[in-house]
Parts: sequence; structure tokens; C-alpha cells
Amino acid sequence: METEPKSTQPVGSYPSDPLTAPIGPISKITNHAWGRSVGAPSAIVYCEGNFSRIDGKTANGLVRHSESYRILSVIDSTCAGHDSGQMLDDVPNGIAIFNDLKAALAHEEEMPDTLIYGMAPSTGKLSGEDRGVILEAIALGINIVGGLHEYLSDDPEFSAAAKVGPGVRIRDIRKPRPSKDMRLFDGSVSGVTSKKIAVLGTDCAIGKRTTATVLARVLNERGIRTVLIGTGQTGLMQGARYGVAMDAVPPQFCCGELEGAIVAAFEAEQPDVILIEGQGALSHPAFCTSAFILRGSQPDAVILQHAPKRAHRCDFPAMPMPDPVDEIALIEAFSDTEVVGLTVNHEGMNEAEIDSAIKYYSLKLGLPVTDALSRPDEDLLKIVLSAFPQLVERPIVAAE
Amino acid sequence: METEPKSTQPVGSYPSDPLTAPIGPISKITNHAWGRSVGAPSAIVYCEGNFSRIDGKTANGLVRHSESYRILSVIDSTCAGHDSGQMLDDVPNGIAIFNDLKAALAHEEEMPDTLIYGMAPSTGKLSGEDRGVILEAIALGINIVGGLHEYLSDDPEFSAAAKVGPGVRIRDIRKPRPSKDMRLFDGSVSGVTSKKIAVLGTDCAIGKRTTATVLARVLNERGIRTVLIGTGQTGLMQGARYGVAMDAVPPQFCCGELEGAIVAAFEAEQPDVILIEGQGALSHPAFCTSAFILRGSQPDAVILQHAPKRAHRCDFPAMPMPDPVDEIALIEAFSDTEVVGLTVNHEGMNEAEIDSAIKYYSLKLGLPVTDALSRPDEDLLKIVLSAFPQLVERPIVAAE
Repeated sequence: METEPKSTQPVGSYPSDPLTAPIGPISKITNHAWGRSVGAPSAIVYCEGNFSRIDGKTANGLVRHSESYRILSVIDSTCAGHDSGQMLDDVPNGIAIFNDLKAALAHEEEMPDTLIYGMAPSTGKLSGEDRGVILEAIALGINIVGGLHEYLSDDPEFSAAAKVGPGVRIRDIRKPRPSKDMRLFDGSVSGVTSKKIAVLGTDCAIGKRTTATVLARVLNERGIRTVLIGTGQTGLMQGARYGVAMDAVPPQFCCGELEGAIVAAFEAEQPDVILIEGQGALSHPAFCTSAFILRGSQPDAVILQHAPKRAHRCDFPAMPMPDPVDEIALIEAFSDTEVVGLTVNHEGMNEAEIDSAIKYYSLKLGLPVTDALSRPDEDLLKIVLSAFPQLVERPIVAAE
Repeated sequence: METEPKSTQPVGSYPSDPLTAPIGPISKITNHAWGRSVGAPSAIVYCEGNFSRIDGKTANGLVRHSESYRILSVIDSTCAGHDSGQMLDDVPNGIAIFNDLKAALAHEEEMPDTLIYGMAPSTGKLSGEDRGVILEAIALGINIVGGLHEYLSDDPEFSAAAKVGPGVRIRDIRKPRPSKDMRLFDGSVSGVTSKKIAVLGTDCAIGKRTTATVLARVLNERGIRTVLIGTGQTGLMQGARYGVAMDAVPPQFCCGELEGAIVAAFEAEQPDVILIEGQGALSHPAFCTSAFILRGSQPDAVILQHAPKRAHRCDFPAMPMPDPVDEIALIEAFSDTEVVGLTVNHEGMNEAEIDSAIKYYSLKLGLPVTDALSRPDEDLLKIVLSAFPQLVERPIVAAE
């Protein structure tokens, strides 16, 4: 088993499949130590038919970065035999892809702790085929982690099976706490003096979380203390310490729960910057949770993630992508904030096209533009420092 | 017991308490027959400490209009002995207010079918004091209906008590169907040829549902076939045939579930007009479910409800009310639609002040303005007919 940290260098290659979202190699968030914790539970990620594709974004994220689980392997018969890092980023990570649970288990010396259901299909629903694999794992005493809206722990068959075995736990990342324990928005977020920056996008699955995670690393490396607030199941599975799976919270509490996470991060960490992961797109006809994110976080600034080559909204072939100009106008009309930079998702683009897109949007928008994965960290940093010159880099001492 | 239909005339008096939202006397929706159905289950509405106040809006709505339940009485010790209609609208409705459950039961000849928890506190939570009353009712074999986020049917104590008795049912209006049965937005709402009009507002509890319900009656009376889509628990309790309690649906499905209700209403009723009840306010920092309502319904037009004398947002003393000019700009920036009229909530206003507000906003906004409760139906109708002159009044035959 490969146990060493992966490279933290941005990759120089680009997925040839335009459906592959570039959720790149990411190092540390906030004060976490980098690398796969040996103490974390071991996990196989189930992603049948979807690994490296948009609907496999939970698996894609986990093989690149996980603090909460030690990822052993991936199950996807359509790409069995490949290395998952090689497939995603052309950089091997030692996490192999297997045909089925049996093959994945044969590769391990000990029984894994956990099976993670690593797909986030837009329907939010468990396929009939997947049920057998989950029951097989439960029978072997493997804990189950799900990120779907369909809570695995509420499934009568799964919960009955889990009771038979030796204390199998079923964890649903998206399952919110009881609504009686949820908090309403009360405006206390306005007392947060950290600079609040939301990373929004022009579509779903476009790299908002990736850009936010890279930016958190870059800022922290420069001594600008930064906390990332996770708002989706993947970031929370990866181990974000503050956040809430927004799309599972009743709308009445969405703004308040997010505000609560931000206030908690502020009080505990007193960071210079709080980054907030966006969801969907404010303009999206189906997924506009970013409305709650803007209201609940009241950001001082917004960074917008956009994929210039994406032809239509993910999973909605009839819906064209918005122009960033329109998305920016919408965000600034909806919220008392300012879009301070654009980040490019380079799916379907070569180096020259990325350069060209960066120049084009810089001129068109009059804003700093970069690609968090393929361009220097300094360019990403520049977006934040241009907007907030009072944030001062504090060079990390050599001992780090 | 009074069983005759209430007057459908707008009331000429105004609540002196500015916290009392004028959710006025309303007659029929869509094709329903007017009046309390003798066949509907009988119900006592529990509203301790909140009747006629904003947080009692479920009870206020039910004593004015209910198709699903025959309302017998209200429990609220702070106004026991009063007639609920007299208290709300200065028009007696024969629905008395009692001190407690015992007194309410003593007034009836038969055991009521149902106890409705008739409060919608902004916290969404059940008070400890209320639990005793619910358990008392369950012990008597009375069914329970709740509209809270805290599902009464999930409460171990209530569900255990309900099992002991003779088949007591606990119904939670807000409890959504399982997420695996929910639908995602798919754009099919764009195939709906009825004119879609959303009734939004500048705040919560400001009379959006009331104006929508009056407008539905007025349009249907003029032969313009109209269906109202309920989006909140009160409208759905009152008996709206199409709708979804938006604020209990996971955000991922909000647009899709609303779209589904609209498409279902269109296919079954082929109405000329579909009215959509708004929720909260698009500008509201805490409650902006109207974002999903605009995305999911894609309305051809919006009518905006505003309370000129309201000093701050309901339940949020530190949040000033928005100017309708700004709210209109926000709505039109957020959605490809047009605000076609303003309706006034006359709380805290006398006749002269209402006249003055109508003139002021007509000039300021360049739009038709009226008060659905205190001004002639024709003025409300004019908002719709000015925007959609192709809608033709079809006079109802004399037999009606």
C-alpha cells in the first residue's frame, strides 16, 4: 500500500473527457496536518460506473484528499485495473480501482473499516444494483457511509442487516440533526470580522470546492489564517471541520445553520479569512442553494468559478451555461457583495486555450482571472490580496 | 353553532395591533364549494398565547377559511371568551375561543375528530407546555395535526401514546414524502401555457397567501379559471389541492417539487391562470425560499405584497423592511419576470392612510396598486388584466 503523501504540485495535464471535473490534488486545510492519517478508519469507495466522472465526484474528491478516512481502493468495473490518481490527474496515487467488492477485499490484508458510497448522482437516489453491494459489506461487518439524500440508515433492510452483524454502523453524511436543534439566522454573522469570501460558480460540479480548497492551502501557506466552511457532502466527508450539508437542511434553517458554522469557526479559530464553499449556481433553474449561501454568509467578496468550454449545465442538456458577466451581475444584484475574481475550470482545454481564456476574461470582466489547478498559486493569491490589501502575508518560518 | 357561510365582503376595520396580520375573510378557491363542509373532520385549533397574532397565523387562517377541516373552536387562554372572527376582523364567525382543552370539549356535543396545532412560531419548535395538551387529546382518541418542522409523528412519546389509544392518527402537514420519491426540476414547467403569477412579498407573514386566495376567488368569479398552488403549511391545511410545503423539502428538490405541483395542476385543470403562493421575501436574510419559488415556477408575472407601516421584518427587530422599489428590482434581476402590481397590507393603517399609500405607490412604481381586503375586487382584477389583456372575463351565469 502506498501511504506517502501525494504531490501537492498542481498537475500540468488535463482530463481528455470533458465530463471529468478537475478536482485537483489538494494538500492541507486550516490547521490539519497533511496526508492520510494512519489513525483514520480505512475505507473502500464504491463508485460503480462513475469514477472520474461528474456523478462520481465524491469518490474523485476522496482519492485526492481525505482527512477523515484512509482510502484503500475504489470499486468501478468500468475502469478496473487502473490507478485512480493516474486516471484522474495523470499522477499515480497508489489507490487501485477494482472490479467488485470481492476483488477489492482480496487486495487488503485486513478487513477494511468502511465502505463509502462514493457517487452523488443528480437524482440523489440509490440504484437497485447498489443495494446488493451494501448488503454484502454489512454482512462482512464493514461500516457504511453514505452521502445520498436517501438515508441508508433509514432503510429497513440495511438497518435490519446492520443489527444482525457485529455492530455495523451506518452513517449518513447528509442526514441533518433534528430540526428542533437547528438554528435560525439571527444576524450574528455580521459580527464576524474575518474577511468572508464565498466561492460560487456558474454551474454544479464545476470545481468550486476544489478552488476553495486550493485557495485555503495557499492562504495558510502564506500565513494568512484561513478556514474553509464546507457546504456539501464531499467536503464534509473529506474532513472539513466546519460546515453543513446545505442541501439536506430544511430551507427555513439553511441561512441559520450556515451562519452558525461560520460564527463557530470565527470564535474558535479567529482566522483572517473564512472561505465558504458555494453550491450549484445562483442562476441555476434547479439548484440555487447559493441563494442561501449568500444570505447566510453575507460575504465581503465572491470568487466565481467558470468552465469556458462547458456547453450546457451539468445533467441538463437543454440548459445553456450562463455568461460569467450575467452571473456576476446576478450575484451583485442579489447580495450586497462584490465579485473580485474569476477562476477557470480547464475541462476540455489545452494550455494555449487556458491562457487565452484567462486573458479574455481578464479584459472582459476587468478582474483578476486564473486557474487554481494549472497556474501559479500567486495568481490565485492575487485575487484575494487585490480585494483585501490589508491582509498581510506572514512568511512561514523555515521549520515548517 | 354557527354553520352559515361568513360574509365575503371585505372588512372595513383594521386591527389596532400592528402584530395582527390582516388575513381577511376569504370565500372559495378554484372549484371548491364555499363553506365548511359537514363531511370534513371536525377540529379544535390549539393556539395558546398566539391567536390573532403573527405566530398564530395557522389558526388565524383556519378560522377564516378551511376546506379540509370543520373548525369548532380555538384554544387560547389569553383571549378566552371572545369570538375568533370578531377578534380578527370585527365580524363574528361563531367560532369561540376557550381557555383550555377541557372547556373547548365541554362546548361540543360530540368528541371532535382532530386537534390542530395552530401556531407557526419562527423557531419552528414545540414548547414544553404544549406537549401536555397534545398528550391529553391523544388519550381522548382525538387525531392530531401539526404544521411544525418538529414532526409530531416522530415524537416517541406521542407515537407511543397514539398506539395505546383507539387508532389515533398523527398527521404532519410539513412532513415531505421520502426523498427517493421527490422529483428534480426538469424544465417541464416551461410547457405550462396557463399564465403563471407568483404572489411574493417584502416580508414573512405579510399576507401573500391571503392576497393570492382573494385573487383566486375574484378571477374564478369572473370566469377566468384559476388554480392556487400552496407552498406553505397553512394553505395546505386549509385545503389547497395543489402544492408543497416548500420549507420542509430539501433544497435539492425544492424547484422540482414545486414544478411538479404546477405541472400537475396544469394537466388536470387546464386553468387560465396559475397563482403561486410566495414564501418569506427574496431579500430576506433568513427566509428566502422565494428564490426556489421563482426558479421552480418561472412566473410570467409577480404581484408584490407590502405593509407600508411595518417598521422591521417580522420577528427581526434589527432588520429594517425593504423598500418595494428595491424588492422589485431584486425580483426582476433574479428572475426573467416582471412585477405587475403591488398589494398593500393595511396593518396599522386607517382608511385615509390606505388611500394615501395606494396613490403614493401607484405613482412611485408606475404600477396598479390596491389592498385585496379593503378595496374593490375590480382593483385587484385590474392588476392581472392590465398585465394579461388576453385573459377574458366570462360572466358567470345567473344560476350561480
